[in-house]
Amino acid sequence: MSKKKTEKVSVFALGGAGEIGKNMYVVELDEDIFVIDAGLMFPGDEMLGIDKVIPDISYLKENKERIQGIFITHGHEDHIGALSYVLRDLKVPVYGTRLTLGLIEIKLKEAGLLKKADLRPIDAKTKLTVAGHFITFFRVNHSIPDAVGVCIQTSQGAIVHTGDFKFDYTPVDGKQADFGKIAAIGQRGVLCLLSDSTNAERPGMSGSESTVGSELNDVIYEAPGRVIVASFASNVHRLQQVFAAAEANNRKVAVVGRSMVNIVEVAQRLNYLRFKQKTLIELSEINRLDDNQVVILTTGSQGEPMAALTRMARNAHKQVNIRLNDTVVVAASPIPGNEKSVSKTIDLLFRAGANVIYNQRKVHVSGHGHAEDLKLMLNLIKPKFFIPIHGEFRMQKAHSRLAQTVGVNANNIFIIENGDVVEFEKRKARMSRKVNAGNVLIDGIGVGDVGNIVLRDRRLLSQDGVVLCVITISRKNKTIVSGPEIISRGFVYMRESEDMINEANRIVAKQLQGKLTGELDWTEMKSLIRDKLSSYLYEQTKRRPMILPIIMEI
Amino acid sequence: MSKKKTEKVSVFALGGAGEIGKNMYVVELDEDIFVIDAGLMFPGDEMLGIDKVIPDISYLKENKERIQGIFITHGHEDHIGALSYVLRDLKVPVYGTRLTLGLIEIKLKEAGLLKKADLRPIDAKTKLTVAGHFITFFRVNHSIPDAVGVCIQTSQGAIVHTGDFKFDYTPVDGKQADFGKIAAIGQRGVLCLLSDSTNAERPGMSGSESTVGSELNDVIYEAPGRVIVASFASNVHRLQQVFAAAEANNRKVAVVGRSMVNIVEVAQRLNYLRFKQKTLIELSEINRLDDNQVVILTTGSQGEPMAALTRMARNAHKQVNIRLNDTVVVAASPIPGNEKSVSKTIDLLFRAGANVIYNQRKVHVSGHGHAEDLKLMLNLIKPKFFIPIHGEFRMQKAHSRLAQTVGVNANNIFIIENGDVVEFEKRKARMSRKVNAGNVLIDGIGVGDVGNIVLRDRRLLSQDGVVLCVITISRKNKTIVSGPEIISRGFVYMRESEDMINEANRIVAKQLQGKLTGELDWTEMKSLIRDKLSSYLYEQTKRRPMILPIIMEI
Repeated sequence: MSKKKTEKVSVFALGGAGEIGKNMYVVELDEDIFVIDAGLMFPGDEMLGIDKVIPDISYLKENKERIQGIFITHGHEDHIGALSYVLRDLKVPVYGTRLTLGLIEIKLKEAGLLKKADLRPIDAKTKLTVAGHFITFFRVNHSIPDAVGVCIQTSQGAIVHTGDFKFDYTPVDGKQADFGKIAAIGQRGVLCLLSDSTNAERPGMSGSESTVGSELNDVIYEAPGRVIVASFASNVHRLQQVFAAAEANNRKVAVVGRSMVNIVEVAQRLNYLRFKQKTLIELSEINRLDDNQVVILTTGSQGEPMAALTRMARNAHKQVNIRLNDTVVVAASPIPGNEKSVSKTIDLLFRAGANVIYNQRKVHVSGHGHAEDLKLMLNLIKPKFFIPIHGEFRMQKAHSRLAQTVGVNANNIFIIENGDVVEFEKRKARMSRKVNAGNVLIDGIGVGDVGNIVLRDRRLLSQDGVVLCVITISRKNKTIVSGPEIISRGFVYMRESEDMINEANRIVAKQLQGKLTGELDWTEMKSLIRDKLSSYLYEQTKRRPMILPIIMEI
Repeated sequence: MSKKKTEKVSVFALGGAGEIGKNMYVVELDEDIFVIDAGLMFPGDEMLGIDKVIPDISYLKENKERIQGIFITHGHEDHIGALSYVLRDLKVPVYGTRLTLGLIEIKLKEAGLLKKADLRPIDAKTKLTVAGHFITFFRVNHSIPDAVGVCIQTSQGAIVHTGDFKFDYTPVDGKQADFGKIAAIGQRGVLCLLSDSTNAERPGMSGSESTVGSELNDVIYEAPGRVIVASFASNVHRLQQVFAAAEANNRKVAVVGRSMVNIVEVAQRLNYLRFKQKTLIELSEINRLDDNQVVILTTGSQGEPMAALTRMARNAHKQVNIRLNDTVVVAASPIPGNEKSVSKTIDLLFRAGANVIYNQRKVHVSGHGHAEDLKLMLNLIKPKFFIPIHGEFRMQKAHSRLAQTVGVNANNIFIIENGDVVEFEKRKARMSRKVNAGNVLIDGIGVGDVGNIVLRDRRLLSQDGVVLCVITISRKNKTIVSGPEIISRGFVYMRESEDMINEANRIVAKQLQGKLTGELDWTEMKSLIRDKLSSYLYEQTKRRPMILPIIMEI
């Protein structure tokens, strides 16, 4: 409020509101645009064949020259994963802490964008003045080190974005959230808080990461043979605790899985991960040690079909296969939607003879604050307006209820969807316009070329398969010269359905006989074939395959 | 052990071992076969387009004349849902309690099998002698009334099958499990126990259904407007408590959803559900009452896309749409795999303005015993041998650990897969042969005509769609007379990919030019087209659609 000029302030999400994933928030101060995070989302089951989903940034492309920077709160995929697409179109500085930038560099290198990128390191103490606006950061605790919140000063008060956070009183690296600084921001006056809603439905506090460490230590101490720990690669605190527990029990650590190897390399190089040089061994060395001298750190905690743990469980990993006396620790909770694949992997591990430790012991805590963490943040920040972000609608709603219990006026809470713009003028707020926002689907190297029609077709194809009916017609003689030939895939097992297919052929041929006179109307003929085949096949099977009539003409 | 003759006893599962669903267990006493349950399973995500899965009963078909009866423990789909298929092939008596048979009758009627079926009512007190073998039942508690366990006497001791169960000390209908009878069975000597493993991983006891009643009562008492309760239709105890709470709060109850309407009708007719005649109203009558006089009982607790609650939430139900001041109670837990669709429905309900009560209040308890229930059963039955059934492998494993803690010898526990036969002779047991067991997939009216090839094709089609390449060739002139024509579905949006498709056409035409001499080899030409197209399209898109070359000949 120290600035003289009175700006118009707008806040909106291009991703992350009403969903978990593809976080991207925008703060506009008059003409200046500040972007917070640029994440991806993993596709839902209904997005058949899609690899990743990123935010639609058409608004940002149209307003390129106004963007002052992208501020990244931490290095998780749902906050950095869209950068390698976004930076193709936007040539703007990207601000992040050291570890965050280390992880971004890996992505940009793979995408061939690293050399052109303008990456600017910050830390929790950095004070920036960008285009005349004062921007500061504050440390928060999360399931990755070096996570920060962002505070953008405006003439109406600060806009504060928490990033993903919890409060950990006994963090593994000894670095608590900046309680004092957050409180001071609150004291100076906050116009609007945007805060992480992931665990707003869960009571209590999320608990300290260090409780996992002592549990891991016990598990490793008690294990008769090898210990295999599966975790999110980016949870460097968790990895640190695995290394520490291994060292405390005179074990070596081998690392498996591409992302795990990448993160261990970066985190160690940047000094976020500390262990004795000889503790880390090559995977090929484990067979030279006794089983009770080995810890294997691996990806695959979500039961991903191609991840290392899943392959070990299926006896399909080149170097490590699960055997009797192995102890496997699944140190993660299933992300909603992954429950079945995680269960399947655990079953396979048990079948292979391992003792599997999953939800019975405290080998995981969440990185997102529960209700009490969220209330503490609200109490420290004391915002006039509140926008619950980073969550599905019911989580935003639950967060809104929490905010009301600590005194935020219900009329001052905005449960936004992506694209809803909240405008602040003279310390009053209203939902005003709506900007373009949505999903851009990435399939292979195609960005946005798979839309609703393609997805609808994939869904149809996945349910009852496809039936082709090919006919060659002589336009001159008005006769069928070849076909009809009916071919199906994913519909019925052809060899057992010959009679039905033959009958379908007859039905099509018969239908066309009367039609091959006068002007030939392809569209009419095709829709006739489609209708007749569809109703015959439905009657025979109660299935509705996609039917493709193809008329070739000579 | 009172019988003189010493039979050979075999026990195996045709469904339900290593999985949740399609329960079907077999007990063989020399030549006599007793089947316990005949359930279906809902398909996993990988079974694209499949409607239901039932057990492979080829073993039973081959041994038809030896089957003495099918004994149904209770009326849930995963215990009765295969009957309408099984009874097409097996003309054998089906034994069940009154409510169970009432529900079976609905199924058989729909399948046109009711008139021929030989349904024989039993209750927990029934004593049968079938083919000289003594069979009794015992009452258990479960999330449907009238659930029983089965006890088949043999010369080596009893074979006891618990059915699905928990112990409820304060059941809604006042009918506790038959503690005394179960204990007496244990006293007389049990050779082998087969027991429900669903919740073996969960600590403590599962809790009494009546705790849900008081919570429902509070919710209905506090609700400002209509209360909509979604529950499994078959949970008649839960329905009873909804009716009771409605009556206590001077509300009427309307019932929505086909299965809910069916169950309420059957349960009321058979006297398992009691309420004042005027409490139940037609759905069309709710608008004549004040909102705070209405309770709506509905299906859709699993977020099933076509269920009533989901349609109400989407504003797509003909008679009831969610509005402000509605209270919606989701009185069920998501079945593993349904988490996302349940969340989606809850989000929609919140967006529509309802207050949604799901996991924050105790509006659901499980019908399957937790660890302490399971230990109590083991302590009462004191079996010599133990087979954990009705569960995925890790649940069977957890149940096995529980059994060991209460004194069952680890060597006497058999964690079986479907088809594994455990043979008992002279009170010794061993896993011997293996009988045919597996999944029979039902898609539309086809039973077993969708196999691995069809599913593999559906999976391929669902990922990157299909590309057809059709060519008509004149065998006489050795020329292409029409085409190549490339058509795709679910691959790319055609209009934006014209260049790529045109280039693909050119590539195919060029490849074939040299080949149209001498003897034409269709197979070779097709595989040439497939390879060239596949590598060109992959290079352009990094996708691998299914490619179908079709050569028509004139």
